[in-house]
This record gives sequence, structure tokens and C-alpha cells, in this order.
Amino acid sequence: MPKYYAAKAQLTELLVELGEGGTLPTERELAERYGVARETLRLALRELLLEGRVRRQGRGTVVAGPKIEQPLSLSSYTEGVRRQGRLPGRRLIALERFAAEGEVAAELGVAEGDQVWHLERVLLADEERVGLESTYAPVALLPGLGDDFDPVSSFYRYAKEACGLVAGGGRERIETVLATPREALLIGTPPALPMLLLHRSSWDASGHPFERVRTLYRGDRFSFSAELSAGE
Amino acid sequence: MPKYYAAKAQLTELLVELGEGGTLPTERELAERYGVARETLRLALRELLLEGRVRRQGRGTVVAGPKIEQPLSLSSYTEGVRRQGRLPGRRLIALERFAAEGEVAAELGVAEGDQVWHLERVLLADEERVGLESTYAPVALLPGLGDDFDPVSSFYRYAKEACGLVAGGGRERIETVLATPREALLIGTPPALPMLLLHRSSWDASGHPFERVRTLYRGDRFSFSAELSAGE
Repeated sequence: MPKYYAAKAQLTELLVELGEGGTLPTERELAERYGVARETLRLALRELLLEGRVRRQGRGTVVAGPKIEQPLSLSSYTEGVRRQGRLPGRRLIALERFAAEGEVAAELGVAEGDQVWHLERVLLADEERVGLESTYAPVALLPGLGDDFDPVSSFYRYAKEACGLVAGGGRERIETVLATPREALLIGTPPALPMLLLHRSSWDASGHPFERVRTLYRGDRFSFSAELSAGE
Repeated sequence: MPKYYAAKAQLTELLVELGEGGTLPTERELAERYGVARETLRLALRELLLEGRVRRQGRGTVVAGPKIEQPLSLSSYTEGVRRQGRLPGRRLIALERFAAEGEVAAELGVAEGDQVWHLERVLLADEERVGLESTYAPVALLPGLGDDFDPVSSFYRYAKEACGLVAGGGRERIETVLATPREALLIGTPPALPMLLLHRSSWDASGHPFERVRTLYRGDRFSFSAELSAGE
């Protein structure tokens, strides 16, 4: 067993003792306690940080709480986070329209050159930046999005209330990717933190595509769950 | 934009040109071509490797194929991989019985001290090691598992044919974690490769828990998909 991993195992026990929110001793103290080099201890701490088991707070390191569990379903980010007792929020990065091409046009069921919206927002939970969401939707279905949509509110609520659009079904795919420098900057994560990338396509009650979403969630802060039934 | 990321963007274009299975030029050639230091080029290549967009083959690096897409459903690993036109396989690491305690006992609905099986297998796709699966199940429900189960075959098929157990429902949760040194060794991945960890609990038709599974999938080789319906 590599030394850093033995130190990580000891740190893991310490996290349980300290409990959520507990402050870890300094790197120097921990390295002495476990009889390892500072560099070795740092490697162990870095993995715990990437896995979301500890987090930085000011100049110290504290024991992190459990990951936020998002259901794989057509419920909005707002509902999922609220169900976990946390306060959801969003911060607008961009709301622009452009001429659809290639994959975006195909997924949204519009012709190449048709106008589509691109809405990009940072996702917040209790004011912490936890994800980055890019939504693409046909302008023809949501003509007023640029004028009367409050960009910190729920896109689904707007689609329903202003345009009568309700998701009838969808498809999601999850993978793990590394944050790009731009994404890391926008979400405020260390570069190359493993992220969960959720691809979603939804269609309305009549089966017409109405959104294509790419959401990047901090891998250290989120997990996703699904209920399975035998028929599937 | 950091230099390594500019190099990564150029490499990404090169991958498209080369196509799946195409061999990349040497690091030295690529570093010269993009005018970056060898170390910078290596950083860009490492990210592409972690993301599964290239893979090592012998002493060279080739363009990887798409990730294997596993449905989130109660179908077995075997079915999922076969649906992608790849040959599923398994290699036995351990099949042992022990007295259940804590979380395992609770999730399997047995008393502390009751005997449970632990079946650990490496998952293969076309002979490549792609995951590691740990299944826990009550001995009382599958008494003959140690004697008449072929450990490279499907656990679900055995449960059904030998014990009349059929999954009636289940629950899955996915998160991204880093491989431990032992896991990295068993799967043959670089240590600290981001992995997808799937937690699954299933119950039989009468609602009695019959398995608890932890499957670690190579994050560079798998993605997971789900169909969503408005009722969820």
C-alpha cells in the first residue's frame, strides 16, 4: 500500500471522529502525527478534497457534509436542491440567440440556420457555486425568453407559464469529465477536478424536442440517483 | 487560456482527423508541431487519456472509440455491454461468506451476524478490464452460490434459475470517485483515474432486499443513460 494511501486511510478515520464541519489540524501536525512527509500528506488530502470529503474554509480544511443527491428525473435543479434542505440559486453568465447548426439543430428538431437560445448559468446551493448549466431551446417555441424571463428563476417554470411547454419525456446521459479552464474559473473549482456532465434532451407532451441541456456538476458535491423498476 | 489547454484543443482536432484507432505522432513530434514544451504536451495528453479520448496501445497512443453506454436499469452488465456490440466477460477475484454487520446487514434486511455472500469480480469488455463489481447477498436466499454458481456468468441469471429470485425494483446512485491503489491494480488503470461508482440495492418481487452492489466503472470508458418520463 502506497504511503499516501495509508495516510489517507488514517485521515478518513479522523474525519469520522471530527464529524461534519470539524476543523482538521494543520498539515504539519498531521504529517508528524502519521509519520509521513508533508508532500505525502498533501497528496492524501488532495484526494479527499477531490472526492468532496473535506473542503477548504478560509485558510483551514474542514470535514465536508454528504454530497447533494439529485434525482435523475425531469424535475428542475431548484426542486432537487430544495429537497436536500439547501437553498438553490442561479447566476446568469449569458443569454444569447444564434443560428443553429449541426448537433444542436438536430437535437432540437429545427432546421440549420433557425434561431435558438443559449442560456448559460452558474448553479448555486446555499450561495456556493456547484455547477454550470447550458440550455439550448428553439426561439420559435420560446420567443419572449430574452425579454420577460428572469434569468435567476426556473427555466421549466417559465416554459410552462409563459409558453405552455411541459416536458413529456426526456433522455439523460451522465459521464465524468475534467473541467476546462473556463469552466473551472466560472465554478471556482481547482482545474482538472473530476466533474459529472449530464446531457439532457427533453420533448414536450406531443413529442417535439424543446430543450438540449449540458450541465456540469462538481463531482465532489453531487451524486445522482434513480429508482428502477423491473419493467425497464 | 493556459498553454496546455491550447495544445489540448489542437490535439482534439487532430483526433477527429485521425479517426478511431488512428495512431498519434510521438510526444516529441507533437510538442514541436504545436510549439510547446514536452511537459506541457504531456499534461494535455494526460487529460485526454483520463477522459478516455485517447488510449495507450503498446508503446504508442491511439484515438479511443466512444464510451460504453450503460442503461440505468435492472438489466445485467452482460446485456448492457452486449447491446453495444462488445463481448462482456468477468474474472473472479473473491467469493466468500461472512457475518453481516452494520450497513450491509441493514441494506440486505438481515440480522447482524447472519451469513452473507461477497462476490467480487473484474468486469471485462472485449477482454479489456473496465470495472470492478462487489455483490453482497444473503446466504439464506442463495444457499448454493458457493457450490454451483459459475463465477464468470451472470449473477442475475443464477439467482433466477437456481433460486427463483427476480428483481422487482431497485435504487441506484452514481458518483465520481478516485480509484484506490488496490482497485487501480485490479482494473489495471493509472492510480487516481476518475471512476464512476454505482451503488445499487435491489429487492425481489415481494419487496425483500436481495442484493447490494457496488460497481466501479472506468470513468474513461463508461457513461450511463436513463429515459425520463414526465410522471417521475
